[in-house]
Amino acid sequence: MNPTLPDIDAIDQPELTARLQHKLDNKTKPVGSLGALETLALRIGQVLGNESPELVSPQLVVFAGDHGLAARGVSAYPSDVTWQMVQNFLAGGAAVSVLARQHGIGLTVVDCGVAHEFTPQAGLVINKVAAGTADSLSGPAMSAAQCRVAVASGAALVKQLPGNALLLGEMGIGNTSAAALLMSRLCSMAIADCTGAGTGLDHEAVQRKIDILGQVLALHASAIEPLDALAAFGGFEIAAMVGAVLQAAAERRVIVVDGFITSAAVLVASQLQPNVLQRCVFAHRSGERGHALMLARLKAEPLLDMGLRLGEGSGAALVWPVLVSACALLREMASFEAAGVSRQEAAPVNATSAN
Amino acid sequence: MNPTLPDIDAIDQPELTARLQHKLDNKTKPVGSLGALETLALRIGQVLGNESPELVSPQLVVFAGDHGLAARGVSAYPSDVTWQMVQNFLAGGAAVSVLARQHGIGLTVVDCGVAHEFTPQAGLVINKVAAGTADSLSGPAMSAAQCRVAVASGAALVKQLPGNALLLGEMGIGNTSAAALLMSRLCSMAIADCTGAGTGLDHEAVQRKIDILGQVLALHASAIEPLDALAAFGGFEIAAMVGAVLQAAAERRVIVVDGFITSAAVLVASQLQPNVLQRCVFAHRSGERGHALMLARLKAEPLLDMGLRLGEGSGAALVWPVLVSACALLREMASFEAAGVSRQEAAPVNATSAN
Repeated sequence: MNPTLPDIDAIDQPELTARLQHKLDNKTKPVGSLGALETLALRIGQVLGNESPELVSPQLVVFAGDHGLAARGVSAYPSDVTWQMVQNFLAGGAAVSVLARQHGIGLTVVDCGVAHEFTPQAGLVINKVAAGTADSLSGPAMSAAQCRVAVASGAALVKQLPGNALLLGEMGIGNTSAAALLMSRLCSMAIADCTGAGTGLDHEAVQRKIDILGQVLALHASAIEPLDALAAFGGFEIAAMVGAVLQAAAERRVIVVDGFITSAAVLVASQLQPNVLQRCVFAHRSGERGHALMLARLKAEPLLDMGLRLGEGSGAALVWPVLVSACALLREMASFEAAGVSRQEAAPVNATSAN
Repeated sequence: MNPTLPDIDAIDQPELTARLQHKLDNKTKPVGSLGALETLALRIGQVLGNESPELVSPQLVVFAGDHGLAARGVSAYPSDVTWQMVQNFLAGGAAVSVLARQHGIGLTVVDCGVAHEFTPQAGLVINKVAAGTADSLSGPAMSAAQCRVAVASGAALVKQLPGNALLLGEMGIGNTSAAALLMSRLCSMAIADCTGAGTGLDHEAVQRKIDILGQVLALHASAIEPLDALAAFGGFEIAAMVGAVLQAAAERRVIVVDGFITSAAVLVASQLQPNVLQRCVFAHRSGERGHALMLARLKAEPLLDMGLRLGEGSGAALVWPVLVSACALLREMASFEAAGVSRQEAAPVNATSAN
């Protein structure tokens, strides 16, 4: 792999983990009764290396790029929607804009390779590798050099961000195809199991999409290694996310993964550096076919299952207050001792008169 | 039924519903891609009768009461924990205190019948019907008159609350037993299917709990009507919640239902006035056995499924920002026209060269 990518150490801090678990178990509640919130609190405490973790200055980055394969009819929307939605993110009218505003999450949009020339504007970073990837049914989506540039640009971007949490978002007409191709290749799964309706294809169009993606896979049969597959299938926004995930993991930021596309980037990153998964919180199980299987492959337990299938980082932004809750409970809930609450009895009173 | 209880009209406003749906479908996203968030936005818009709904001054009420049956060993905790947790709620150290503080939700604790004399303090309402219900294995948990008083007190309390949303919470050692008894009787379901570990009984203790609850059901075989069953099984906090739910529904407040106990109160209320369910948002599917079945019976689709089993209103408070998000998306997302984003193509381009 690329020697410039950071090494991600295993989080191995049994003493901190034991202290976190002890703290959770001594809160005024039955042991384990906060369910997945407790697992989440433990995870965030481990990532931030703190018994009283506090998430500060969360940053949501929407990585945007276009896909040459989109011209093959793999999406229900035209490629122009990518740049139009970038403008919508910046103008504050997209779902992710509304949710980030609600929760005070910093929002940055990155042009990783959109087929449009943007005028410089606040909130937009232009790291354009090219005006969209090449058509992966004719050749690789990007060159190995372009792939390296895109990955490095994502890592460099994260280095400059404040805070200790990175929320992943993306925009790119055609990028469910790239994600499905990566999943099929890197997980050795049938493309039909990885391919869904994306922005809203009907059944027949999904079948055509599967056919096309099968041809793409055949054309790039030798792209087995993660970065080779990434270059073959694209896109620039996924490659930049791979770099962003590796960098955020190296810095011990909490990484909030959104839906199918961002999970595909995490899949690639995790095949380069398996320990990135220790830093990830999976926001939700998307309605996009393939995501549930991908989450299972990543052994990920998502927090929400609300049938979202929008992308943009909308699920990550939606679930953000739940992460804040997990930390607040760890920091602010009273212990049994402090609150003067009686503990669980060793054994329940046996109701002899009732038996 | 009690003639003093309010009538709850059906929400029947097809024009508003059509406008809400049209508004959602014209937002800059694929139709339906926000999944359950869209259903939620529609529901809140219908309840508040507004195309641009805004939730204001949310109020979480923790209804607290003790249960005579607790002396039979149906809970892993002693009854004293009820009043101790009331103090913990008021001191700000309980899970629901932390979550309500995080989200700016007003928190009121109501002594509906705790076996403890509280000193008056801010945030505590004393509507004590008695110092705990009677043991329902010896006779009815409360008299018909006490039941009426408790229901009326819950309704009167809600009348005085500001805002347009009521989040339900409860505390009462032994109240999973009362909820299981109500569910079994009112849904005609086997008590074993309605009975879980509550605060943390082991398998053997759950079996004892089921035995005891079976005897209670047999003793009150004639308590078939909702208010009769409520009086027979208790508790005061559940009766007060029934009144609160009816009043909130009559006022067209959004009612956020928490876990197993609050759902049991909604079950009782819905058998008195079925239209209350139109005003309810179900926060989560609890880890308490019986809740999933009860939700199915109520045809309720909960928002979260995180294995919470704490009660207190913790799930309702946790999910609150998701309701705020649903309204914000409806109010603030741009339409395709306003944002200049291209619509879905009538039919995807057929990739002839690829087929």
